[in-house]
Amino acid sequence: MYRTHNCGELRIDNIGENIILAGWVQRTRDMGGMTFLDLRDRYGVTQVSFNQEVNANLCMAARKLGREYVVQVEGKVIERESKNQNIDTGAIEIQASKLTVLNASETPPFTIEDETDGGEELRMKYRYLDLRRKPLRNNLELRHRLGFETRRYLDQHRFLEIETPYLIKSTPEGARDFVVPSRMHNGEFYALPQSPQTFKQLLMVSGYDRYFQIVRCFRDEDLRADRQPEFTQIDCEMAFVDQDDVLNTFEGLVRHLFKEVKGIELPEYKIMTYEEAMRLYGSDKPDLRFGMPFVELNEETQNKGFGVFDAADLVVGICAKGAADYTRKQLDKLTDFVRKPQIGAKGLVYCKVNEDGTFKSSVDKFFDQEALASWADKMDAQPGDLILILAGVKEATRKQMNELRLEMGNQLGLRNPNDFAPLWVVDFPLLEWDEESKRFHAMHHPFTSPKKEHLGLLDTDPEKVNANAYDMVINGVELGGGSIRIHDQKIQSKMFDLLGFTKDEAEKQFGFLMGAFKYGAPPHGGIAFGFDRLAAIFGGTDSIRDYIAFPKNNAGRDLMIDSPSTIAPDQLNELGIDVIDSNE
Amino acid sequence: MYRTHNCGELRIDNIGENIILAGWVQRTRDMGGMTFLDLRDRYGVTQVSFNQEVNANLCMAARKLGREYVVQVEGKVIERESKNQNIDTGAIEIQASKLTVLNASETPPFTIEDETDGGEELRMKYRYLDLRRKPLRNNLELRHRLGFETRRYLDQHRFLEIETPYLIKSTPEGARDFVVPSRMHNGEFYALPQSPQTFKQLLMVSGYDRYFQIVRCFRDEDLRADRQPEFTQIDCEMAFVDQDDVLNTFEGLVRHLFKEVKGIELPEYKIMTYEEAMRLYGSDKPDLRFGMPFVELNEETQNKGFGVFDAADLVVGICAKGAADYTRKQLDKLTDFVRKPQIGAKGLVYCKVNEDGTFKSSVDKFFDQEALASWADKMDAQPGDLILILAGVKEATRKQMNELRLEMGNQLGLRNPNDFAPLWVVDFPLLEWDEESKRFHAMHHPFTSPKKEHLGLLDTDPEKVNANAYDMVINGVELGGGSIRIHDQKIQSKMFDLLGFTKDEAEKQFGFLMGAFKYGAPPHGGIAFGFDRLAAIFGGTDSIRDYIAFPKNNAGRDLMIDSPSTIAPDQLNELGIDVIDSNE
Repeated sequence: MYRTHNCGELRIDNIGENIILAGWVQRTRDMGGMTFLDLRDRYGVTQVSFNQEVNANLCMAARKLGREYVVQVEGKVIERESKNQNIDTGAIEIQASKLTVLNASETPPFTIEDETDGGEELRMKYRYLDLRRKPLRNNLELRHRLGFETRRYLDQHRFLEIETPYLIKSTPEGARDFVVPSRMHNGEFYALPQSPQTFKQLLMVSGYDRYFQIVRCFRDEDLRADRQPEFTQIDCEMAFVDQDDVLNTFEGLVRHLFKEVKGIELPEYKIMTYEEAMRLYGSDKPDLRFGMPFVELNEETQNKGFGVFDAADLVVGICAKGAADYTRKQLDKLTDFVRKPQIGAKGLVYCKVNEDGTFKSSVDKFFDQEALASWADKMDAQPGDLILILAGVKEATRKQMNELRLEMGNQLGLRNPNDFAPLWVVDFPLLEWDEESKRFHAMHHPFTSPKKEHLGLLDTDPEKVNANAYDMVINGVELGGGSIRIHDQKIQSKMFDLLGFTKDEAEKQFGFLMGAFKYGAPPHGGIAFGFDRLAAIFGGTDSIRDYIAFPKNNAGRDLMIDSPSTIAPDQLNELGIDVIDSNE
Repeated sequence: MYRTHNCGELRIDNIGENIILAGWVQRTRDMGGMTFLDLRDRYGVTQVSFNQEVNANLCMAARKLGREYVVQVEGKVIERESKNQNIDTGAIEIQASKLTVLNASETPPFTIEDETDGGEELRMKYRYLDLRRKPLRNNLELRHRLGFETRRYLDQHRFLEIETPYLIKSTPEGARDFVVPSRMHNGEFYALPQSPQTFKQLLMVSGYDRYFQIVRCFRDEDLRADRQPEFTQIDCEMAFVDQDDVLNTFEGLVRHLFKEVKGIELPEYKIMTYEEAMRLYGSDKPDLRFGMPFVELNEETQNKGFGVFDAADLVVGICAKGAADYTRKQLDKLTDFVRKPQIGAKGLVYCKVNEDGTFKSSVDKFFDQEALASWADKMDAQPGDLILILAGVKEATRKQMNELRLEMGNQLGLRNPNDFAPLWVVDFPLLEWDEESKRFHAMHHPFTSPKKEHLGLLDTDPEKVNANAYDMVINGVELGGGSIRIHDQKIQSKMFDLLGFTKDEAEKQFGFLMGAFKYGAPPHGGIAFGFDRLAAIFGGTDSIRDYIAFPKNNAGRDLMIDSPSTIAPDQLNELGIDVIDSNE
């Protein structure tokens, strides 16, 4: 027993008790005849006092403590003279009678404070020290709580958590697999799952009508800033359900999490089709914390002599409420913003609706006041508002306008991280055409069911077929997505055809699933949530890395343990593989 | 909405309700003008009746249903004439008014019954059908419940579930690693964790003083019947604790599980040293549901002219209560049992204590009644008991006697799967000498702390050093094991020396841990439970495979998905590896 209490729990009621604490030295302060020690553990910080006059040796020992030393303190809880309202234990302190150094510490390479002086790389290398900082601790505690409450909700709703294998089979569809050479079967490989998709569908065939798993998934992709080669999903599947059943169940889950973990009653979910989301917000994950929907202005703007508009596939505007006072400089910066290579617009047209009802536009020479009034009318712009317009090829212009809308949301303070605007986006297209490979790809995955009423189009106009697929979006972040699956072997087989699988390939890769569908597969569907991202949105930040205890960097490397690394020739030999010399 | 109720919930109270069920056709029976259908889902079976006179077409359709068809039935709940007490829904049946076939089924390759006609291999290949059987469903439901209650208990005790990475670094210590070639860093490899050992210790250094994780682990070992290349652990670690704290906390966990999941109040845990366990039961995981401890008889049996005993290092007996009536044939079979190659004894000596107080032994010609009486005295054998004796080299003889004791426990019905005898085995040796490599191996792992009072022996008599290591054993099964860890960098360094690591190797493999120990590592320790095995012991059977949804066979192969398998040359190329042609 190293302690009777933790460093976060002593209160005014404990005064007079003899206690033992253990923890890390946050700091020591010498104040004349007194030395104060802030002792820290996971639960908080408690002040310990050493009195030079009462026990000079003990006080001397305390003065010698370095930052991050691990110590044990015995003493009595006394009332503090000047209370600290900022910490829970601020009403008391410990009058130390014994001090034991449990372990010394070298000076850490960066400070263990909320705001540290350590750079990204240094903190990744010493992740075990970075994790001592309160913001990261809060993140991991939040993540734990989210995982626990997810399980509690799903358990109450009779979902079973069933573990599926990590050593599975490589399938070329989708992203790249990580593979694992087999020692017992040289020349053969397992693959790490990109998701337990086929296994959870098999579990539906097996009659486990409500499955979930909080499960690691693996994708060997070139990493972007917010991707990790391993990530965690809340993976769920239900049988004997249609789309509404799935939506209701998981809207319920997220509502439960917001209530239990953040104490927030989530507003009602909006439901929007993919087509609508793209048309109104240029994104399949619109941030609905604010309005500013797209308004298409082709009719109002074309054939008026302005070549840029006339040549455009789409002329589209947004109305920034109350932003008519934007200066020339601000407007120039917005133009620079949309012209950044990542966004790629050629230019930006604005039209201010002045307080006196007149208009001031960057294209005044092509459009008179009446013409501009017709824009304002179509866009429901009021005096004081700023209309921003982009034009060009439809799809690209929508994407650009999406970026601009989000930027305006930021500039006008409309994206409060403490507001939450939940949304279902539904009716995704089943397929998307890939120019490079000249074939269809599955927009969601090859197991997604076409809408019943579109089944006939599969043969004639596959690109027009919508899917029973849905995404849950909150504040512009896709939290999860799923679909009703195909459970008919013939339709599944046709899907594989459409996706360009030969019969042989389909059989080799998914034969077990097609086989399973022959033995009584029930209608089923499901969803998967990105757990890292869920934690990040609950934490109110963007970086999923701050919600993963031991993340990898953008090169897929763990800087702390220095992995990946070379392995011994013996090991390679046993596995029946050779490393190709890259100099050859 | 495919159903209003499930197939396990309708009762006499529901009579008169119009309901919809969906599920699988367990069987149909034609009884003159009536057809009965047993409809099955995860929750139970409900009888559906079709009346030829009321609706001939519907009845005809029902007759055409094959086994395992997926159907939806609408109808009214009515009282059953002859109630079935064996099922929960046995008081009612559904008078069908509508029948929809949701999916047809081919005839399954084996029957979906509690006792199936399918062989092991067939059932593994069609695991998705095997999983429909009730015994397997019960197992997976039990497993879910155990996982959930484990999390509930640990959450209540302020443990945080923290996910550690699966793509880590290969370490040659211990069993073989599975490795994962890196595409972004050709020639380098990740390894899959054999356990999150070093990460959980780092979390202790980070101040997360109560960590757990239900986590997959991987070992590339030649498989025995009860081993899987991937298995699940309940992995736990605590800081600022000594051994008693850990034992109390996890005795509490297992007590909680028995109470919540099985409704059983577990008896008090016995605590036994490793030395004692080996001496009294010849095993570090004795089954204490019954007594029959070893009694060493060297003094009573040697130098009496029986060469086998005289030449033996150890003569040891067990007393089988009430087994003096064993026939010659039974005794011969016991002799055959101990002489099996897997057990390896040369022979078995018995001595019956007859009801009249006389003795009958297989070595009568060397030992007179008085000598035999001294055996019985030492062993506290009573009239009616049977003494069984083995002799030989100490360690081997103890192992043999352990097998014999367990066999006798079986034969005498002393190993009731509904009894539970929990035990802590403590004070394991720190090291064991490996003759082959001529060096010490860590008995538990290289991070296990030597007993404080044995620290001095590390330099002089390392083989005499005991560790702060402990195993939890129930009914002869090791459920979990752990230790107090080293948190002092110097002792850890000395351990690596003792285990034959060069400084370079230690630094390369565990430098990050040794580094972490420099920055204030708290005293800490932990435990890990085999979750598959835990589920099996709760389920009352031995085969962990029956508690894993998708297990691999003894060759590490998943027969259902046919994995491992070859991968495309492109994939190999990208990974910078080559398969060595085994014909070269």
